[in-house]
Amino acid sequence: MITSTANQQVKLLVQLNKKRKLRDERGVFVVEGPKMFWEAPKERIEKAYFSETFFEKHKEMLTKQIQAEGLEYEIIQDHIFKAASDTQTPQGVLCIVRQQASDLSELLKREKPLLLLLENLQDPGNLGTILRTAEGAGVTGVILSKGCVDLYNPKTIRSTMGSVYRVPTLYTENLCETVELLKAHGIRSYAAHLKGVNFYDQENYRDGTAFLIGNEGNGLTDELTEQADTLIRIPMEGKLESLNAGVASAILMYEAYRQRR
Amino acid sequence: MITSTANQQVKLLVQLNKKRKLRDERGVFVVEGPKMFWEAPKERIEKAYFSETFFEKHKEMLTKQIQAEGLEYEIIQDHIFKAASDTQTPQGVLCIVRQQASDLSELLKREKPLLLLLENLQDPGNLGTILRTAEGAGVTGVILSKGCVDLYNPKTIRSTMGSVYRVPTLYTENLCETVELLKAHGIRSYAAHLKGVNFYDQENYRDGTAFLIGNEGNGLTDELTEQADTLIRIPMEGKLESLNAGVASAILMYEAYRQRR
Repeated sequence: MITSTANQQVKLLVQLNKKRKLRDERGVFVVEGPKMFWEAPKERIEKAYFSETFFEKHKEMLTKQIQAEGLEYEIIQDHIFKAASDTQTPQGVLCIVRQQASDLSELLKREKPLLLLLENLQDPGNLGTILRTAEGAGVTGVILSKGCVDLYNPKTIRSTMGSVYRVPTLYTENLCETVELLKAHGIRSYAAHLKGVNFYDQENYRDGTAFLIGNEGNGLTDELTEQADTLIRIPMEGKLESLNAGVASAILMYEAYRQRR
Repeated sequence: MITSTANQQVKLLVQLNKKRKLRDERGVFVVEGPKMFWEAPKERIEKAYFSETFFEKHKEMLTKQIQAEGLEYEIIQDHIFKAASDTQTPQGVLCIVRQQASDLSELLKREKPLLLLLENLQDPGNLGTILRTAEGAGVTGVILSKGCVDLYNPKTIRSTMGSVYRVPTLYTENLCETVELLKAHGIRSYAAHLKGVNFYDQENYRDGTAFLIGNEGNGLTDELTEQADTLIRIPMEGKLESLNAGVASAILMYEAYRQRR
């Protein structure tokens, strides 16, 4: 039982939630709450931490899991647990999970992949929501530019509602090169852009398709826009300059999914 | 020139950003940043506050506006301005704007209105994004249940990117009664629901249409679900239980907009 905030493991949990560098060095991230714990792939759990109250409440189920799967765990006193948590109202379980980057060549082997390419996305909540929507729309994988916010940021994790475990993701050094590689594999890339000629729903996304989504404030860089096979336009009424990045990608992903159903 | 954080107007700005009750009593809200200031309907601006630096930088344009429109304003010393602001990096202009609730009977007079009904939405960012998307999709108006987060919350305002000025909105005491009223006016209501039979893209939204969107965690109440004319389903792959409320409403609004184009 952990009974002090000075405990090294409590300190580690706090630091892992705060520091991307430490997460990447150790190749892990922290998830919170029962949903994120129960949904975590068992083979990727490094260690689970339960508050006393949570452990007592779910003792039977947890004991089974501990015995059957050799789950590594610690119990933390309730008031100490609060210090380890990243949320205002902790839900009694924290879990260190191993990161898992997908292999682009694996994604390219799939039949007619539907990919989402994110360039310099900055808002953790946006990124999490995009992953959640990507799972819903049956996206094959999400590829992030090096300049994107960390996928394993606690806010991102929360917004994914578990999709972070299930949607294949990878970071790439150079998104332009990735688009070229996709082209060589017969995957057409579409950039949502004000200069697009066709509306997004006038193109055919039934074959291999990649959507390029840019930064919240600045949109796509010119360099990446030029790499895209086709510029498409999401029409807008009113005086709006753009849609939220999460909304724009949802509209595109769900249009592709609609066509593919 | 305001030179102290003890100034009553600085205190008022802070309180207006914090307290819904005060905003509602005074019938105003606070917007921040040049974009929100320039886009504000001039007749609804109660008073503008500029940091010294901002005022100096835009002196010519501001002087014109002050003379031409009788804009009420104050200048605030830069370091005091920071205390009045709700953001980490203030952009030099704050503005008190009058609230404006739309009249439901006016919305009902429009030809084939496209309405969005929000029940107990809790996330300010979600609400703001929904308003922004609603403007893009040409939505006639957004109707909020009494239990929704405040439309004039600073986070909501920021996420609207100016749509808060342009999309007609109103709060309603009883959303079920509103749906009945819509029905009497020939407007069909659609609730996104797991029990929906048809997919969302298999219905016709060219006539008067209202989409019902529920709370982020709990979805629509049974009571409101029963009031809906049609339950529709947004299909989802994977193990997802639901989409983000902002994403779900975007998919529905943009499908209606696609059909109406």
